[in-house]
Amino acid sequence: MSTEPPLLSALDLTGTFAFGLNGALTAVRVARLDVVGVVSLGMITALGGGVIRDVLIGAVPPATFVDWRYFALAAGGALLAFVGSRRLDRLDTPITVMDAVGLSTFAVIGANKALAYGLGIGPALLLGVVTGVGGGTMRDILVLQIPSVLRSDLYAIPALVAAGITVAAVKAGLYALPSALVAVAACFVIRMLGVRYNLNAPGPLGRRPEDGPSGPDPTVRR
Amino acid sequence: MSTEPPLLSALDLTGTFAFGLNGALTAVRVARLDVVGVVSLGMITALGGGVIRDVLIGAVPPATFVDWRYFALAAGGALLAFVGSRRLDRLDTPITVMDAVGLSTFAVIGANKALAYGLGIGPALLLGVVTGVGGGTMRDILVLQIPSVLRSDLYAIPALVAAGITVAAVKAGLYALPSALVAVAACFVIRMLGVRYNLNAPGPLGRRPEDGPSGPDPTVRR
Amino acid sequence: MSTEPPLLSALDLTGTFAFGLNGALTAVRVARLDVVGVVSLGMITALGGGVIRDVLIGAVPPATFVDWRYFALAAGGALLAFVGSRRLDRLDTPITVMDAVGLSTFAVIGANKALAYGLGIGPALLLGVVTGVGGGTMRDILVLQIPSVLRSDLYAIPALVAAGITVAAVKAGLYALPSALVAVAACFVIRMLGVRYNLNAPGPLGRRPEDGPSGPDPTVRR
Repeated sequence: MSTEPPLLSALDLTGTFAFGLNGALTAVRVARLDVVGVVSLGMITALGGGVIRDVLIGAVPPATFVDWRYFALAAGGALLAFVGSRRLDRLDTPITVMDAVGLSTFAVIGANKALAYGLGIGPALLLGVVTGVGGGTMRDILVLQIPSVLRSDLYAIPALVAAGITVAAVKAGLYALPSALVAVAACFVIRMLGVRYNLNAPGPLGRRPEDGPSGPDPTVRR
Repeated sequence: MSTEPPLLSALDLTGTFAFGLNGALTAVRVARLDVVGVVSLGMITALGGGVIRDVLIGAVPPATFVDWRYFALAAGGALLAFVGSRRLDRLDTPITVMDAVGLSTFAVIGANKALAYGLGIGPALLLGVVTGVGGGTMRDILVLQIPSVLRSDLYAIPALVAAGITVAAVKAGLYALPSALVAVAACFVIRMLGVRYNLNAPGPLGRRPEDGPSGPDPTVRR
Repeated sequence: MSTEPPLLSALDLTGTFAFGLNGALTAVRVARLDVVGVVSLGMITALGGGVIRDVLIGAVPPATFVDWRYFALAAGGALLAFVGSRRLDRLDTPITVMDAVGLSTFAVIGANKALAYGLGIGPALLLGVVTGVGGGTMRDILVLQIPSVLRSDLYAIPALVAAGITVAAVKAGLYALPSALVAVAACFVIRMLGVRYNLNAPGPLGRRPEDGPSGPDPTVRR
């Protein structure tokens, strides 16, 4: 990820820390875990999306395994959550904001990297979204929650918007810091509007699905 | 997958569409999902098995990320399930038939590709089965169902038969359209007999396992 | 894995058999599975950690897909569990001992292999642990258990100790059979002390997490 402009790298590192912190906090809330579990789940949340992307495009070992700063920030965020999980409950708003920064930056960097490895538009959009949501999805599975990205909240859709702007900019030969920041900002704004007004993506038409084994749990946020 | 005979590619694309449709329908039945969730799970069902196989043999980016038709058919099937899930409930039989076509073709193509990448007989059999059942297994995990392939129905075993015939044909230097179709047909017939007569693979000997946290749910079919 | 000293390879094969057996037994205890499920879960437990490591470092096809002995021992252990699951319940102690041998050896070999593929210290430690615990984690997810490694028991920590000794020995240019055996022995002793005295890794500070959807199940051991 070192080929991105420095500002974008800084946002990427911020997001990694936020995902590590937020992922570990979510894990603590829904399951009885020890220190190994909390730190593992925080690191998986922070690094998982990029690792899936890098495995799928053949960029192994994954970028976050090579640049120690990602590893350190993910672990640091997760350890902070382990030590101070009770007190951090009061910091919901800044954590949500930092998490949205991470989602936005991950989607932009992920889509750009997929294109750089020769993938087409569809897979690049997919991998942009996967970079943003893959880590949280792995965390949810590991603590036996249906991944929240699959059933509620505007979370994948803003990431898709960011990936779409990125792909359009790259294809037009315009990808650089300004266009990347536009993509980040678009995703960030949609995500924060979704949080503020509690917006959801639409459900299946003409159907009220029976409740599955685990319906939405209002106490769990991403 | 473009090196396979055209008829086999056509069956492969049919199966991809059927898996996308069927995977999304199953997802809608067991969990409360939004459009992101339904389409994601349909695409994962359709493409997941081949992606796992390609990652394990080092054929990245995966074939289905390079050929846009797989992507489009998987997404199309999943979107159709999202829009018309209620009406599609009446089309169980054609969907089950198309799903069996997909299972059979995926197992044959998967085993052949594993051999082409230099793997031995055991891993080629395994990857044939994984190509057929991997996507549905990922879908089941994401909606918190014990993968149905692990506990009931003749689903993995017909795929293993197809992979076995394929491996035998390749090793005898006879792999071509006729032998591939024999393998597809064998898997298809066993699978449909299993559906018709409700056959299951045998359970552990001399043991009635205590019910786990989620016993078999008779409302969920693959 | 053929570049390791013969004694270490022998321990590795022993561990593979034990993981296949133990993984299948655990699967039988918590879920109603057929022969496909039991054997699949045993093989995933035995081979999964090494496969994840090999995918992440780019060593595909995975080592255990190339050397048929791993495949055969994993499948043999799993089949034995399927056939004799009831009688094997009485053999808890030898199975736990063999499982600890596997954990220890896998962590040492995993960390050494990660370094050999050019990874840094942090990722090498992580991949040593993942080699040891990754298979059991995949098995737990597939039968809808929160992975036991995340919430209880000294399981990841002894693996981390083994990986740490291995990394230190490699970096000091001292990695050979004696240092590898020291690392294996350290992990083995810590693990067995944990089993004997029922030791756990510490939980989050100042917090009693609400019970998640699946609290620890005392009948399930790894």
